[in-house]
Amino acid sequence: MTTPPPPIAFLSDYGRDDPFVGLCHAAVAAVAPLARVIDLSHAVPPQAVRHGAMLLADSLPWLPPGAVVLAVVDPGVGTARRGVALAAGAGAESRFLVGPDNGLLMPCAQACGGVSAAWSLPPPPSGAHTFDGRDVFAPAAARLALGQAPETLGEPVEPDQLVPLSLPEPRTSPGLLRAEVGHVDRFGNLQLLARTGDLAAAGMAPATPVTVSVAATTVAAGVARAFADVAPGEVAVLPDAFGRVQVAVNRGSAARKLGAGSGDTVAVEARER
Amino acid sequence: MTTPPPPIAFLSDYGRDDPFVGLCHAAVAAVAPLARVIDLSHAVPPQAVRHGAMLLADSLPWLPPGAVVLAVVDPGVGTARRGVALAAGAGAESRFLVGPDNGLLMPCAQACGGVSAAWSLPPPPSGAHTFDGRDVFAPAAARLALGQAPETLGEPVEPDQLVPLSLPEPRTSPGLLRAEVGHVDRFGNLQLLARTGDLAAAGMAPATPVTVSVAATTVAAGVARAFADVAPGEVAVLPDAFGRVQVAVNRGSAARKLGAGSGDTVAVEARER
Amino acid sequence: MTTPPPPIAFLSDYGRDDPFVGLCHAAVAAVAPLARVIDLSHAVPPQAVRHGAMLLADSLPWLPPGAVVLAVVDPGVGTARRGVALAAGAGAESRFLVGPDNGLLMPCAQACGGVSAAWSLPPPPSGAHTFDGRDVFAPAAARLALGQAPETLGEPVEPDQLVPLSLPEPRTSPGLLRAEVGHVDRFGNLQLLARTGDLAAAGMAPATPVTVSVAATTVAAGVARAFADVAPGEVAVLPDAFGRVQVAVNRGSAARKLGAGSGDTVAVEARER
Repeated sequence: MTTPPPPIAFLSDYGRDDPFVGLCHAAVAAVAPLARVIDLSHAVPPQAVRHGAMLLADSLPWLPPGAVVLAVVDPGVGTARRGVALAAGAGAESRFLVGPDNGLLMPCAQACGGVSAAWSLPPPPSGAHTFDGRDVFAPAAARLALGQAPETLGEPVEPDQLVPLSLPEPRTSPGLLRAEVGHVDRFGNLQLLARTGDLAAAGMAPATPVTVSVAATTVAAGVARAFADVAPGEVAVLPDAFGRVQVAVNRGSAARKLGAGSGDTVAVEARER
Repeated sequence: MTTPPPPIAFLSDYGRDDPFVGLCHAAVAAVAPLARVIDLSHAVPPQAVRHGAMLLADSLPWLPPGAVVLAVVDPGVGTARRGVALAAGAGAESRFLVGPDNGLLMPCAQACGGVSAAWSLPPPPSGAHTFDGRDVFAPAAARLALGQAPETLGEPVEPDQLVPLSLPEPRTSPGLLRAEVGHVDRFGNLQLLARTGDLAAAGMAPATPVTVSVAATTVAAGVARAFADVAPGEVAVLPDAFGRVQVAVNRGSAARKLGAGSGDTVAVEARER
Repeated sequence: MTTPPPPIAFLSDYGRDDPFVGLCHAAVAAVAPLARVIDLSHAVPPQAVRHGAMLLADSLPWLPPGAVVLAVVDPGVGTARRGVALAAGAGAESRFLVGPDNGLLMPCAQACGGVSAAWSLPPPPSGAHTFDGRDVFAPAAARLALGQAPETLGEPVEPDQLVPLSLPEPRTSPGLLRAEVGHVDRFGNLQLLARTGDLAAAGMAPATPVTVSVAATTVAAGVARAFADVAPGEVAVLPDAFGRVQVAVNRGSAARKLGAGSGDTVAVEARER
C-alpha cells in the first residue's frame, strides 16, 4: 500500500453551517486528492484570533508527524495583512503551518520549537481577497502536504518580521494561582491559561483544599487528578486533556456553577484544611 | 487499487465545537493513515449513555461490512470503569466495537448477534484518564481496523462480566401501543423505542385511525406507510428509517405539536372509524 | 500512487446532530470505499429547496473536476416525486448530479451548462421511502463516482420533463439595485440574489456612495472591493466569495444592523456625494 500524503489539520472560525469549510476541503482535494483533512474545530468565535491560537497550540502534540496545520481566523482579510507559510521545529518534529500573518499561528509554532523559516503567500489568481481560506491557504497547505518546496509558494519573510502573539501568562504565588479562562468546552469545563506545573509552583498538590473565585463568586473546591476524585456536583481543579489546568464539576458544568466564561480571570487559593 | 482498511464508525457526546472529535481523528490517522472515520453523531447529549446506545444500535445495519464501531459517552472517565474492545456477531457479520464498559456498546453488540469475546484496554501511556477517546479508544479502534489481533490490545474479559444495558421495551395490547420516545430528530419526528412489528402486534395496520397521547395532550392520527399518506400538518404513526415506529407530522414537527421530547411516554390507541 | 475516484460533494438539510449524514457517508463507503465525501453544508433549513439550490449553484465553480454532486432537500420524500441522476455540461466541465427531482439540482445544473441527460432512480430495495439519501441517492452517487454508466442506474427521463426551479432575479435601473437576500452567513453578511455584474448594470462602481434599505430601515453605505475599504462598523456593498453581491459590515454583522434575513428584499440606491 502506498503512503498517502500527511494529513492537513484544519481550524477556523467558519462554523459548519455555511459551505466555507467544505469549499476549503474541495480546494485541498483539487490539488491533493489523497490528502486527508482533519477538522480540529470550526467553532472559534468569529475573528477571535487569540482563542484560535490557543486551541491550535493545545492540539499540536496530538497531530500526526508531518501533518500540515491550516488555520484561518482572519479579521484582516482584504487588508494588507500577509498570508504566510511557516516552517517550525526541527527534524522529525518539524512541520508546516499556513494561515494569515496575524499571530494566529505563532503559539503553535512556538510549541513546535519556533519558526525556522517563513514565506509570504501571493494573492489569489482572481486578486479578490474575499475567501483566502479557499483561494490561498487551502491550496498552499495541499501543496506542502504533497511535498512541494515552500520556496515555490512565495517570497521568504524574516521570522522576526512576523506579527507576534502571546497568550496571557498566569500569576502564581505561594497558595495562589490567578489565570484567565482560555476556553469553555462543551461540558462546561473551564480551561485555564495555566499549565499543570503552575499549580505545583503555587504549592498546590492533588487533595489540597482550595477555593475557586470568579468575580464575586467563590466556591470550595479540591485539587484533583481526575473528575472522579471529587463527589458529583463538587468543583475540582485538575489537569485537562491538553496539559492545562481546568476547573470542572464532576458530572456538571463549572461554567454554569461559577457563572464564568472565556476571558474571565479565575483565582485558585489554598484554604485551611 | 489496493483495499483500504475498513472504516471506523464514530459516535460520541463530544459535540463539534471543541477539538475533541478532530483529535480522535488525528489519533486514528497516526496509527492507520488510510482508515476512514465516519462520524455518525457527536450530538448525543452529554453523558447520555442510553441515548448513545440507541443511536448506535439503530445505525448498525447500514454500516459497511467490517466497519469498526468507536463510541464514547463516558460519564465514568477517570473512575475504575473499564475500557473495552468487543467482538460481536459471527462470520461476515462480525465486527469489533470499542468504548467504555458502561453499557453503551451493548445494544449494538446484541444487534450484531451478541458479544463473542471481550478485552480490557489498559490505561493510556500517560496514566491520565482525562481524554480516553483520544488516548485509548481511537488508537485501539485504528489497530483493529488495520487487522491487529484484539488479544494484543489487552486482557480477556468474560462477556458476562460486562456492564449490561437494556433499552425500555414497549408494551402492547389489542389496540394499544405504549412506548418511550428514544430520540427526537432534526425534523421534530419522535422516534419511539418500539419496532414496526409492535404496531402489528397491537393490531394496528396502515390506515388504522388512532389517537396519539403524550401526557395531557391527545391528537387524532393515522397509521401510515409514508409521510405523504397523511395531509400536510396531520399526525402520522409510521416506520422510521431505522425499523422503529415514529410519530411525525407531514411537513411539520411532531415534537412541537405534541410538546414531547426524549424520555416521554407515548400512547398510540386505535379509535372507532 | 493510484488515482482515487472523484469526490462526492454532499449538501442536505439533515443537520449534523442526527446520524443521517453519517449513514449517507456509510452508504457511499459500502459501494466506493475510496471515494471521498466533501460535506458542503447540512444546515440548509429543513425542506428549503430554493435555499439549498442557491448554495449548490454557488459552490459549483470550486468543486474538483468530475466531482459528483449529491444533494438532498426533499419535502416530497415518500410521494410520487422522482429521484434522479443528471448529466450536466460537456467535456472536462461535465459532471453528474444526484438527488430528488424537485428543482434542487437545477440551478447548479444550469451553471454547469445545462442538463444533457437524466435518469430516474428506482425505489430502494426495501420499497420504503423513509430515507432516500441513504437508500437511493448516496449509493447512486457512489456508483457514478466509480465510473458506472448512468444508464445502468435507471430509466432515461427527458430533460424538459424535470421539475424546474429558478431563483428570483434582481431588478436594476440607473442608480438602483433591488434583490432578495438568498443567504445570511455566519458572519452576518447578506448574500444577495444578484451578480456583481448587476451592480455595474445599475451604474454603481466601487466608491459609489449608496443607501441600503430593508423594509423601514435605511443606512448609508459604500460600494467597495473588500471589507477593509470601509471603516469598522460601516456598511459595505461588495462582491462575495461566490461572485454575488453581499451587504456586509466591516468587523460586524449586517444582518443585525439592518434587521434583515433570508428572503427579505434589499434596495441599494446611489446617493449624492
